[in-house]
Amino acid sequence: MRDLVVFGDWGTSRLRLSLFDGGAKLAETDGPGIGALIASPAGTLLQALAPWRAEHDLKRVILCGMAGSRSGVIEAPYADCPADVTDWAGQAADLSLDGLSINVAPGLAATAANGAPDVMRGEETQIFGALALRPDLAQGEHWFVLPGTHSKWAHVRDGRVLGFQTFLTGELFALLTERSSLLMGTDRMENAADSAQGFDDGLARAREERPIGALFEARSAQLRAGRSGAWAQGYLSGLLLGSEVAEAVRSSGARAVTVIGAASLAERYGAALDAASVTSQALSGEACVLAGLRLFAASRS
Amino acid sequence: MRDLVVFGDWGTSRLRLSLFDGGAKLAETDGPGIGALIASPAGTLLQALAPWRAEHDLKRVILCGMAGSRSGVIEAPYADCPADVTDWAGQAADLSLDGLSINVAPGLAATAANGAPDVMRGEETQIFGALALRPDLAQGEHWFVLPGTHSKWAHVRDGRVLGFQTFLTGELFALLTERSSLLMGTDRMENAADSAQGFDDGLARAREERPIGALFEARSAQLRAGRSGAWAQGYLSGLLLGSEVAEAVRSSGARAVTVIGAASLAERYGAALDAASVTSQALSGEACVLAGLRLFAASRS
Repeated sequence: MRDLVVFGDWGTSRLRLSLFDGGAKLAETDGPGIGALIASPAGTLLQALAPWRAEHDLKRVILCGMAGSRSGVIEAPYADCPADVTDWAGQAADLSLDGLSINVAPGLAATAANGAPDVMRGEETQIFGALALRPDLAQGEHWFVLPGTHSKWAHVRDGRVLGFQTFLTGELFALLTERSSLLMGTDRMENAADSAQGFDDGLARAREERPIGALFEARSAQLRAGRSGAWAQGYLSGLLLGSEVAEAVRSSGARAVTVIGAASLAERYGAALDAASVTSQALSGEACVLAGLRLFAASRS
Repeated sequence: MRDLVVFGDWGTSRLRLSLFDGGAKLAETDGPGIGALIASPAGTLLQALAPWRAEHDLKRVILCGMAGSRSGVIEAPYADCPADVTDWAGQAADLSLDGLSINVAPGLAATAANGAPDVMRGEETQIFGALALRPDLAQGEHWFVLPGTHSKWAHVRDGRVLGFQTFLTGELFALLTERSSLLMGTDRMENAADSAQGFDDGLARAREERPIGALFEARSAQLRAGRSGAWAQGYLSGLLLGSEVAEAVRSSGARAVTVIGAASLAERYGAALDAASVTSQALSGEACVLAGLRLFAASRS
C-alpha cells in the first residue's frame, strides 16, 4: 500500500508541488502563483495535478501559502499569535475537490507593540518546519528571518511564534529597479564586480538609517560619479536589505538570527546581518516548508 | 516697442510656457514633459510656440528644468554648490532655433558630507526666484523644501546655495499606490475623511523612524483592521512625507523652513513639518519659477 501525498507551497508568484510516497519524493512540478492566475485556483490546481493523477491514485493534497487567501482555493483563517503548531494547525481549511481531499494551512496574524496589525501566509509553515528539523530552535528564544517579496522577521519562544513583522523589501527592490526613474535610460548590462561594489556601498549607506533620502543616490551616482546601472542595482539591494536589518535589529534587539530561504538570498542577508554585527545561520526554505507541511498533514490525519 | 519673452519650466512630467510683454502675462500654455515626449524636444517646443508665433514676432525663450538635461533641447551643465545666482547663470546653455534665441538654465550639483552626489534641474530657478521675491531670505541661513516627484531640501546662506538633498518621496508614493501589492484588489473609492485619518496615522508612524517596516501596514490594516483603500493611500502619503521630514530634520537640524510649491502639496508638507515641530511658511512655486527665470534672463541679456 503506497502512501501518496502531494505537498504544495502556493505563493503569490509561484505554485510548487511535490509528489511523495512516504518519505520518498517521486516528482516535482511548478505552476502559476496566486497573483498570476489566468484560470480559477481550483482549475489551475487540477490541471497541475493531472499528469500525476493519470499515473497514480492520488487522494490527498496539503497546501500552504496564498492557497488559503481570499484569492486561493479556500479561505483559511489566520491563527492569532502567540501560536504554537497546534494553535496553527487547528485553524486549517479543508475541502474536497474532484475526489481529492485538500487541507489548506492557515496563516498567522499578529499585532505589534505599536498597534500595527500584520499577517503571513506560508512563512509560518517554514518556521514550524524549521522547529521540527532543528529541535534546538524549538527551545528558548529565537529570531527567524524569511527573506522574499515580503520579508518576515518572526520572534519565537519555546516553539511558539510570539509575533512578527513584514518588510516590503523585495517588492520595493523590484519596483525601484524595474519601474522607477532611478535606473531609467541606464546601461542594464550585468557586471558582477560593479553589482557587488554597489551592494557593499548600499549596506554602508544603510547604516546611516536615512533610507528615503539615500535612494536617489542610485541615479545621481550614475550622473555624477561614473557609476554603472549594475552598481545602482547592487546599491539599491544593499540599501534596502541593510535598512530592513537596521530597523528590525533596532526594534527587536536580535543579536543572532536564523535565515530561512533560498541560498542566494540567504547569502545576501547573511552579509547584511554581518555588517550589522548580527550572527546568522541559514536553513533551506524548501526543506523547512516540506517539514512544516508534513507536520500540518500529520495534524489533519 | 514690445518686450516679448517666453518663460518656460520644462520638467519631467510637464512643459509650462508663459508669454510675457514686459511684466504683463499675455498667455499660458502646456505641453508634454521631457519624460513623455513623442517628438524631438526642439520640435515639441516649436509646436507649442506656433500659435503665439503666428500672432507675435517672438525672439526670445527662457527655459529651466529638464529642458537642459541630456534628453532636453540642449544639455546645460550643472553649476557646483556652493553657488549664488551669478555662479549659476554663468553656466547657461544657449542655442538658436528657427530664428528664436533660447537660453537654457543650468542645474545645480552638490556633494553631501557623506560623499553622496546630488543634482537638481529646475528647483534652483525657484530658489533663486524666492530669494529675489523675498530679500529677507537672501540674508542669513535658510532651509527650502521643494516637494514633488523628487523632493529637494536646500540649504542657503546669504543668497548662496550651499548644498541640497533629494528625496524620492513623490515617485515612491506613485509606485506604491499605483503599482504595488499594498493597494491591490482594494476599494479605491475616494473618501476624504478616511484619507485624512490615514495621513495622520502615517505621520504618527513616521515618527518611529522605521519606514521600510511600516509600509506593509497599508495592506495589513485593510486585511485586519477594517481600513479602506482611501485610508491606505493617506497612510502612505503621511508615512512617506513624515519619513522625509524626519530624515531631513535629523541630518540638517532645520527648525524653520520655506516650502516652495503648489498650495495643496505645500499644505501637506506644512502638516508634516508641524508634526515634527518645524515651523514653515509657503511660497508659490509658480511665482518663484517666474521670478527665477526673469533673473536668469536678465543675466543673459
